[in-house]
Amino acid sequence: MDPEAANTAPDIAGGVQLALTSFLDIQQKRLTALGPELAAQVEAARDATSGGKRLRPAFCYWGFRAAGGDPELPILKAAASLEMLHVSALVHDDVMDSSDVRRGAPSAHRRFEALQRERTARTGKGGDAESFGIGAAILLGDLCLVWADEMMHTSGFSTEALGRASQFFDAVRIEVTAGQYLDLVAQASGEADMDRALRVLRFKSATYTVERPLHIGAALAHGGQSLIDSLSAFGLPLGEAFQLRDDLLGVFGDPQVTGKPAGDDLREGKRTVLTTYAVEHASPAQLAEFDRLFGSDELGDDEVQVLREILQDTGAVQACEDLITERTQDALASLGKAPIDDAEAREALAALAVAATSRSV
Amino acid sequence: MDPEAANTAPDIAGGVQLALTSFLDIQQKRLTALGPELAAQVEAARDATSGGKRLRPAFCYWGFRAAGGDPELPILKAAASLEMLHVSALVHDDVMDSSDVRRGAPSAHRRFEALQRERTARTGKGGDAESFGIGAAILLGDLCLVWADEMMHTSGFSTEALGRASQFFDAVRIEVTAGQYLDLVAQASGEADMDRALRVLRFKSATYTVERPLHIGAALAHGGQSLIDSLSAFGLPLGEAFQLRDDLLGVFGDPQVTGKPAGDDLREGKRTVLTTYAVEHASPAQLAEFDRLFGSDELGDDEVQVLREILQDTGAVQACEDLITERTQDALASLGKAPIDDAEAREALAALAVAATSRSV
Repeated sequence: MDPEAANTAPDIAGGVQLALTSFLDIQQKRLTALGPELAAQVEAARDATSGGKRLRPAFCYWGFRAAGGDPELPILKAAASLEMLHVSALVHDDVMDSSDVRRGAPSAHRRFEALQRERTARTGKGGDAESFGIGAAILLGDLCLVWADEMMHTSGFSTEALGRASQFFDAVRIEVTAGQYLDLVAQASGEADMDRALRVLRFKSATYTVERPLHIGAALAHGGQSLIDSLSAFGLPLGEAFQLRDDLLGVFGDPQVTGKPAGDDLREGKRTVLTTYAVEHASPAQLAEFDRLFGSDELGDDEVQVLREILQDTGAVQACEDLITERTQDALASLGKAPIDDAEAREALAALAVAATSRSV
Repeated sequence: MDPEAANTAPDIAGGVQLALTSFLDIQQKRLTALGPELAAQVEAARDATSGGKRLRPAFCYWGFRAAGGDPELPILKAAASLEMLHVSALVHDDVMDSSDVRRGAPSAHRRFEALQRERTARTGKGGDAESFGIGAAILLGDLCLVWADEMMHTSGFSTEALGRASQFFDAVRIEVTAGQYLDLVAQASGEADMDRALRVLRFKSATYTVERPLHIGAALAHGGQSLIDSLSAFGLPLGEAFQLRDDLLGVFGDPQVTGKPAGDDLREGKRTVLTTYAVEHASPAQLAEFDRLFGSDELGDDEVQVLREILQDTGAVQACEDLITERTQDALASLGKAPIDDAEAREALAALAVAATSRSV
């Protein structure tokens, strides 16, 4: 199966989109009954949940199938709840990072900020637009976090199946928040710390993007402990490889593909494994240059290029590529040994592993 | 039963505190295993969940008892989850309002900001303290929101009981977020709008503080629809009366009792029923003075006093007092007709109604 096919046959992305749209249709009626102003929140949620790679729902779906789950069961709605959770994290992340752009469109807080500016222009009065934007986006993230839970427990699975999945659903929600905090501390520390960068890699990404979605899907299908363990052995290295790729794309990726301005991670001063490796292996001259530029809002294209060269010349890029290769191979080796009977699930997971870590994602 | 006794016999506040402390002890082990930095999040949660009036847990507990629930069941842990939800809302609310103080102590974002300043002073480097504080507090609110759910579904009730309560637990989480957004729009509009102020009153407070906690408790004890309806007839007017009292205290309350600086609501420009009534009934001179001062960060004691006098002289204070009396009487009349067999529950709810709306709370 080629990488593209993993997400399209069966049409997981389409089913997830349908589940999200149907759910938000219901929420729109519910919220606008409380006040017509709330339509803006639902619209923002619609836009924020459209697009994206749907990786977490795909891993959840194939974890379910790997455990022998019946595809007639409401797995796509349960899987879609992970996309809703992801949007909650992205909306809050963009507030925390003051990011203007997400998936090629204005980030949620910038969108609400614009709404407030329009209102003020129309009425000739009103409060500060930036504060409004931040407040409204915090609430949007909260809504999506609650909605993720509601989507999961109203997905149509039995209370027994949901009970089995709940420990993993709790874990993923706690871990992603904890991982975000570790990331925030890493950025705020102004220090390169490889131990912390590796923990961020694990808890902000590997468990959240791959391992826990697999676990949730498997638990919904009554997967046993040995499958759960095998999915960890597959999912954790794969999730780390995925995030290492994402970090490389955050610095070297095409803005047309990533949906974010080139060099944004460098302006934000993201303390990733990539940048931490570079700091640890830089010459004094490289380090001085790096410290001068890294994390500055004002970086122009030339300065972004200088930082990219330091990342190349210190061997950081190659080290990350090597880690990606190694982790992906580990993941695939573990997949080979996993107790999965469904050949389609096995192939799809292998294809997702390649798709999630390849240069073009 | 006197008002104080409603919360102490049985010792609801003590049981809720114990449930919160035990839960956070477990979370502390779980989070610090991901990274020692996360101890700061758990510590912040401990402080944020200590103190407060525990009104929501008390209504949940007595809703449970009103439905004939067995007090031996794990109702205090389920009730405590509403306090965790409340803390989530408060932490995010303080970020949105840029409030420095909560319950007499620094608000969560100010606390994390101070942590970052200390780190920077110690290491001689580091990122912006204010941004760190805001980001960390957003994540604390997210954690508390997820924890509220985890406390509820690990409280020890059967999956069947939890299933009955889940529609109300979903509703309360959606409504409080929606209510916060309506409140944010009201503040940002720069306009007095009584219809919107009344909707904020209902959805930010009445359902959230009283009606839904009663429903959740009753549903956990298998309360029937007629009890649920009766609890709405009691809880909604009571919740509105409670919030009207809170709004009066936000302007006229003793900072020693409210835990917030005098006049904070006036500096924040809170568009409550109280201030909206004043604007609608102000003379042109009063209105000009009100518009000049209301919502200004810089208000001194004298200017706070000028605004207070406008609220008194326009009759807004008296109108709110009249509404509180009327709504509380409506609530108590509905309680009199409610199908509640447990005499202790009936008395406790009546006492809570008085306590929550009296001048001294």
